[in-house]
Amino acid sequence: MDLIKDYRSDAATLPTLEMRQAMANAEVGDDFNGEDPTVNRLEKMSAKIFGKEDGMFVISATMANQIAIMTSTHPGDEVLVGEESHIYNMETGALAALSGVQTRPLHSQNGQFDFKNVEKSIHKSGLQFPLTKILCLENTYDLNRGIPLSQEYMSELSLLAYKNDLLVHLDGARIINAAVALKVDPEILCQGIDTMQFSLCKGLSAPVGCVLLGTKDFIRQARRMRQRIGGGMAQAGHIAAAGIVALKTMIPQIKIDHLNAKRLAVGLANLNNNLVDVENTLTNIVQLNLKNIKKDAYYISSDLEKHGIKIKVIDSTTCRFVTHRCITTEDIDETIDVLKNILL
Amino acid sequence: MDLIKDYRSDAATLPTLEMRQAMANAEVGDDFNGEDPTVNRLEKMSAKIFGKEDGMFVISATMANQIAIMTSTHPGDEVLVGEESHIYNMETGALAALSGVQTRPLHSQNGQFDFKNVEKSIHKSGLQFPLTKILCLENTYDLNRGIPLSQEYMSELSLLAYKNDLLVHLDGARIINAAVALKVDPEILCQGIDTMQFSLCKGLSAPVGCVLLGTKDFIRQARRMRQRIGGGMAQAGHIAAAGIVALKTMIPQIKIDHLNAKRLAVGLANLNNNLVDVENTLTNIVQLNLKNIKKDAYYISSDLEKHGIKIKVIDSTTCRFVTHRCITTEDIDETIDVLKNILL
Amino acid sequence: MDLIKDYRSDAATLPTLEMRQAMANAEVGDDFNGEDPTVNRLEKMSAKIFGKEDGMFVISATMANQIAIMTSTHPGDEVLVGEESHIYNMETGALAALSGVQTRPLHSQNGQFDFKNVEKSIHKSGLQFPLTKILCLENTYDLNRGIPLSQEYMSELSLLAYKNDLLVHLDGARIINAAVALKVDPEILCQGIDTMQFSLCKGLSAPVGCVLLGTKDFIRQARRMRQRIGGGMAQAGHIAAAGIVALKTMIPQIKIDHLNAKRLAVGLANLNNNLVDVENTLTNIVQLNLKNIKKDAYYISSDLEKHGIKIKVIDSTTCRFVTHRCITTEDIDETIDVLKNILL
Amino acid sequence: MDLIKDYRSDAATLPTLEMRQAMANAEVGDDFNGEDPTVNRLEKMSAKIFGKEDGMFVISATMANQIAIMTSTHPGDEVLVGEESHIYNMETGALAALSGVQTRPLHSQNGQFDFKNVEKSIHKSGLQFPLTKILCLENTYDLNRGIPLSQEYMSELSLLAYKNDLLVHLDGARIINAAVALKVDPEILCQGIDTMQFSLCKGLSAPVGCVLLGTKDFIRQARRMRQRIGGGMAQAGHIAAAGIVALKTMIPQIKIDHLNAKRLAVGLANLNNNLVDVENTLTNIVQLNLKNIKKDAYYISSDLEKHGIKIKVIDSTTCRFVTHRCITTEDIDETIDVLKNILL
Repeated sequence: MDLIKDYRSDAATLPTLEMRQAMANAEVGDDFNGEDPTVNRLEKMSAKIFGKEDGMFVISATMANQIAIMTSTHPGDEVLVGEESHIYNMETGALAALSGVQTRPLHSQNGQFDFKNVEKSIHKSGLQFPLTKILCLENTYDLNRGIPLSQEYMSELSLLAYKNDLLVHLDGARIINAAVALKVDPEILCQGIDTMQFSLCKGLSAPVGCVLLGTKDFIRQARRMRQRIGGGMAQAGHIAAAGIVALKTMIPQIKIDHLNAKRLAVGLANLNNNLVDVENTLTNIVQLNLKNIKKDAYYISSDLEKHGIKIKVIDSTTCRFVTHRCITTEDIDETIDVLKNILL
Repeated sequence: MDLIKDYRSDAATLPTLEMRQAMANAEVGDDFNGEDPTVNRLEKMSAKIFGKEDGMFVISATMANQIAIMTSTHPGDEVLVGEESHIYNMETGALAALSGVQTRPLHSQNGQFDFKNVEKSIHKSGLQFPLTKILCLENTYDLNRGIPLSQEYMSELSLLAYKNDLLVHLDGARIINAAVALKVDPEILCQGIDTMQFSLCKGLSAPVGCVLLGTKDFIRQARRMRQRIGGGMAQAGHIAAAGIVALKTMIPQIKIDHLNAKRLAVGLANLNNNLVDVENTLTNIVQLNLKNIKKDAYYISSDLEKHGIKIKVIDSTTCRFVTHRCITTEDIDETIDVLKNILL
Repeated sequence: MDLIKDYRSDAATLPTLEMRQAMANAEVGDDFNGEDPTVNRLEKMSAKIFGKEDGMFVISATMANQIAIMTSTHPGDEVLVGEESHIYNMETGALAALSGVQTRPLHSQNGQFDFKNVEKSIHKSGLQFPLTKILCLENTYDLNRGIPLSQEYMSELSLLAYKNDLLVHLDGARIINAAVALKVDPEILCQGIDTMQFSLCKGLSAPVGCVLLGTKDFIRQARRMRQRIGGGMAQAGHIAAAGIVALKTMIPQIKIDHLNAKRLAVGLANLNNNLVDVENTLTNIVQLNLKNIKKDAYYISSDLEKHGIKIKVIDSTTCRFVTHRCITTEDIDETIDVLKNILL
Repeated sequence: MDLIKDYRSDAATLPTLEMRQAMANAEVGDDFNGEDPTVNRLEKMSAKIFGKEDGMFVISATMANQIAIMTSTHPGDEVLVGEESHIYNMETGALAALSGVQTRPLHSQNGQFDFKNVEKSIHKSGLQFPLTKILCLENTYDLNRGIPLSQEYMSELSLLAYKNDLLVHLDGARIINAAVALKVDPEILCQGIDTMQFSLCKGLSAPVGCVLLGTKDFIRQARRMRQRIGGGMAQAGHIAAAGIVALKTMIPQIKIDHLNAKRLAVGLANLNNNLVDVENTLTNIVQLNLKNIKKDAYYISSDLEKHGIKIKVIDSTTCRFVTHRCITTEDIDETIDVLKNILL
């Protein structure tokens, strides 16, 4: 059992010993009244890293995304989203169910939207058009590919949004992966962003948690929305403590995860050049494309499981491997060996 | 003023004298209690034409569409819609605002969806995916092109929906135009459809009104939804009376509208072959494409207005002409002459 | 059949011959573009009567109420309503379903709220309280009693709302009845009101319709909400024309309705003093209270129906009679005679 | 600072050392996939205690309440709630904002509803009435009084609900307090309940968490709702571990809390008989009523704070003291002494 290599998601990462100790020893208070010192520390620390005015601790990236949209929209507004984005595909229809907003998915090429298409999709007047309110970005983009979006692209898109009176919300669940891959300061990478979240429990390995960031006024209103969906916690500092350790100690691990992902991609490409897009494997996600070989992804997944390797199947011709703290370089090499036998 | 040719929409049609008289002389009662005999007659008549169990009179196509979706969904469900469809683009975000459902737009080629793409877009399980509940069709498709969708296509798509446990809702605001263009009985054309609406006040020339159709049980629940949005009326029979006249007398006019639209399309193509897709001008809508000539649609519209011709501008390179009862064949010829001067 | 006396509701009133002719002869246009001259005339006329900046024609009082609340609130806001009010009890849960607002019902004594209780019910801060946004009045109050609320009461309550940063919305479906009963100018009666509606199809006898009133900015936004729920109509002028006739010709009828209601109340009190509150029968609604005599309201209703008299049963000990244009003084006297036999 | 006596809420309780250790040492997995063994253990354990089929761990009582209602209703349904209940007053309007349901508050006498009034409030048919779907109980009732509702009352009310085709949801944030006060087995106390939640972080002293209980089918659907609002967590076992310790070790503490509350109530009544309702102080909440003495609650609260005593002010004449694990019997006696000086 200990030998299982769980590539399904970086959410599978278990906390470090230091995180476990921090949870046990956390100084806590009632966060409902803003009296939990550990939560307050994590919120300030996070805001500083990304250059935002204020932050609010929540338990998940989905909660952070949904609170951001609830806070900034009216029912019937329209929100522009990436067609492969998490907020559109993987949040149980929450944008419509909780905020009553319509989603307009934008096509992406290698993770990037066409600027003319973005502009054409915006409506700011008219009796019949839903009015466009928010442009949602995701960086890294596409949970099945993990594409880092450059600072230049983010800036230009933010400018376009600003000119068209749109807010920009960033689903930055893996923005640290993007910053590491791009070698850019997170604050600079996110400078055009109005509201954003980043996750502590993906590559950063905390068990639970995410921080939502924005202006002081936005966060003040977001606290009401968090209360409404029952996201407020009493002594949240125990969990937040692990998040602080994650931010302080886990960023070097992200680099290792990226190297491991590249190693896996190269290893697979050596087996068959069409299996993986090595060039675009830039963070911790490796997508395996089976279209060119006569193998079914569900079959491969079940075969791998016999060797203690768990992966996520996307559809019958595609699956993904995510590298993280609990996957070592040796695991990668063993995995390549196993795949060699299965695929060839 | 009398000489104005209003091509903006077939909603611009004024009622006939017979309709006006029918409104004045209608036998009415309180429709809230189901006691308006004229409304009851229109509802039964409409259900019969389209082979559905029951019908409910409402004042607009948007109201009928929205009531249908409110009745058949839960918040957070997903609804598949055409990317150019009215329900997605022109109903003020109502699907999300009123029903809390997420829209997933489908690409269309000449008005038709790719069946594999439809199937790929359906989710019926999983914790994160919004569950797909309804497939929305629109026939004629695209308010700026008016493409009639064939009975074969409708049937095949309905079958696909049925196999995947989806309901099919038809926005048939101009389904009579489709039936006339395709020379097919409306009942046969709509036989795979679960819920649908058709409009009395577009080409059929009634001043106001639309009928929503479906099973008896669906209509019973829809009456509650109509009450909720304030769509119930006391003596609705006055308006319904005009609708009955429309159904009885206006279908021949639809054929004339189509001939006039074709005449306009051919006339424009004679000016420049790239201006219009004559082959696909099959109902009462003519789309003018200005990409190949150096003219701005807003400029042309304002130029036409000086000659008493009103059109709808879609964007700077596209505009539409809709033919209807108040546009004669002579109007068409005069319009071609005016456009000749403006465009060449 | 012609001899039926329908006391169930003043919504049962059939239009006058003049209204029928006005419908037939109306000058109309596409109201979607603001081009229907008859609708425009009715909206201006209505705004003038009540001293408001602008008006919007809709088909029902429920639609007007719901659009007002959709326009002025965010989901999660709280709205104060009368515990017997129409907007709380008779609109199919629309406040929650369409606007996502919570209702807080206020107890009334003879139709009036206790001011201290109103103030105590208001919350304008705090993380957990829903924030109070609107105070909803209804005049005449209680669809089963029709109590006219005085100008002094309305003004004081509006002032209280203003001081507490609440908007005041008036459900004035029968505000004309109140104004007639109180002998006060409608503009003066409604001067502290932010948004309001009045019905054309109750005592005023038009077949369909209601006008929503408020500031120009409010009405501009309300037009988007009307579009969203499908309340926009093409040639709405036909219906609006009857509304104009109603406003011009039917106000004297309201006085007759009130006299008839009083005559019925007095006649019933002569039978048994406990049956009716004569003193508080001030408009066109007579409530019959059967608690003190051993009779069931459902039984009485069915007995009356055999004599061609229809009433609305509220519960087993209460029912109501509404007087209107289609109930004459002779009808009243005959009804008293019939009731004498049934009740004694 | 260490000497502060925080009576504001039992949510203020800090975790025990055993809980801290359990958090650190928890065996965890990805709860998203149902693979966290500690969460699974807590859910099963909780279901067993209350005799329900299945359970789901969430972070707060508000989240549990809201998920229950989202799962069991359609927009526009009506929910009966206590007029002093938490779900109605203290959840930021979530019932309307998230589920689109209308609330109908019921008056209570000593925490109990009048059964005839409950029945009169139920509507199961009609075009205009919102349809009643759920009866919400709260036990202990009223966060400012903590009244335990007897098993007989709960059973009778559940039966009434069952006969009227209503679901019963129990907000049992402090149901353990009720069971202890009533000396009744929690399973028996809750046997007529369809869906319920109880809190681990009030008197039971866990830092965070609550368990929602019901049928297997209900919990299966509730998991989708939890995902939608972002309530799903990766390695939730760390928090759940503290919850398990709470359930295993903290129930004896509840009895002590109740004795301390009674001691405080008696002590205050000795100062002035009108200050507190000793007889109805049955759990861990003491309400101080200042109507009969000329003191303002805000003033008293600020005076107490100077002595290191924090309380919750309800309004100018009422405040509450909540006893819990971090308040000792000595604290109670000291508090009475301080109050003696302030109040007399």
